[in-house]
Amino acid sequence: MSTIGALKWRYATKKMTGEKVSQDKVDQVLNAARLAPTCAGLQPFKVIVVTNPELKEKIKAVAYGQSQITDCSHLLIFAAWDNYTEERIRNVYAHANRERGQSEAETADFVNNMVNMFGSKTPEESFQHAARQAYIGFGLALTEAALLKVDATPMEGFDSEKLDELLGLKALGLRTTTLLPLGYRDTAGDWLVNLKKVRTPLEDFVTEFN
Amino acid sequence: MSTIGALKWRYATKKMTGEKVSQDKVDQVLNAARLAPTCAGLQPFKVIVVTNPELKEKIKAVAYGQSQITDCSHLLIFAAWDNYTEERIRNVYAHANRERGQSEAETADFVNNMVNMFGSKTPEESFQHAARQAYIGFGLALTEAALLKVDATPMEGFDSEKLDELLGLKALGLRTTTLLPLGYRDTAGDWLVNLKKVRTPLEDFVTEFN
Repeated sequence: MSTIGALKWRYATKKMTGEKVSQDKVDQVLNAARLAPTCAGLQPFKVIVVTNPELKEKIKAVAYGQSQITDCSHLLIFAAWDNYTEERIRNVYAHANRERGQSEAETADFVNNMVNMFGSKTPEESFQHAARQAYIGFGLALTEAALLKVDATPMEGFDSEKLDELLGLKALGLRTTTLLPLGYRDTAGDWLVNLKKVRTPLEDFVTEFN
Repeated sequence: MSTIGALKWRYATKKMTGEKVSQDKVDQVLNAARLAPTCAGLQPFKVIVVTNPELKEKIKAVAYGQSQITDCSHLLIFAAWDNYTEERIRNVYAHANRERGQSEAETADFVNNMVNMFGSKTPEESFQHAARQAYIGFGLALTEAALLKVDATPMEGFDSEKLDELLGLKALGLRTTTLLPLGYRDTAGDWLVNLKKVRTPLEDFVTEFN
């Protein structure tokens, strides 16, 4: 089992048919993001799933009118923590300790170090760090979609401040990082579907120190 | 085919046996990173593969002495462009046009827009953006490793400036972002291997707008 074939099959779909993706497949994509590794297991991001047509139209308006946002089945929005607060960090470990049957004392030093480490960063530095973790989940979600033969379009092109406002994310302590419409390619209307996938050759991508 | 089982199997391996991973599997992991989607296909990162024992020791010294760096089979180092220069952007599209049999004129407007867009960012902003792309490849690499039943440890804990210097990356226009030792778990010596994997439940991870 390997993702290579799926990664060669996928492409940044430019036109979608509007056909629905089954909830089972959407859940698998979301679970891939949820299972992604993150710094110290903090999972400093959430995924917002939009199927509401009116809301999709509003989102398209702050995303340069990209048609996949309304023609997709499910629009996934990856939003990272705007900061690693002490409360958030402690909540994650309280949950992990309960699940693992550990006492608070067993992880206290580790958690205190984490609180101090993130406490020494600015909120912007913390958000940038959280956003990187969100990109791991984002990559795993689009890979899982490809394995399920579900099309997706990784998108960074949108006004994140306007989208945060539209979704009321500030009150939730979140900031948008990326969009991932899920759906099915409209082969006849997609200018990219038949263009060759190009990547830098492996020998240029990799440098070896043996 | 799904990555879910592999993602549940994997964990941030704390102790490795030193057993070699076959070159075929290492190449599949590298190809997953190479096939990762990136902003406009720019692939603003490289992977450095270290097997040299002396160099691994030096890297361990700038990474808090983490034993996986020397006990792994192959140490993968993800390094992002320190800037999106005009030359780099134009080189990527010159290559893509050759591969696709397109003329330079067909992509000229798009490429000029890209050069202007990145030209308006500071080098630090550009690096932060490139680093996020590297995290997509990083996530795909560790997922591919898990599918191949190869253990890996995603690592952010190291002194990136010292590692850049050690590897001479400044001259190459690169900055390190993450490490990924590949190898095989040493079950007897690994404190994490038997701890339950904990993730936030799907209903807390996802917010729906229907």
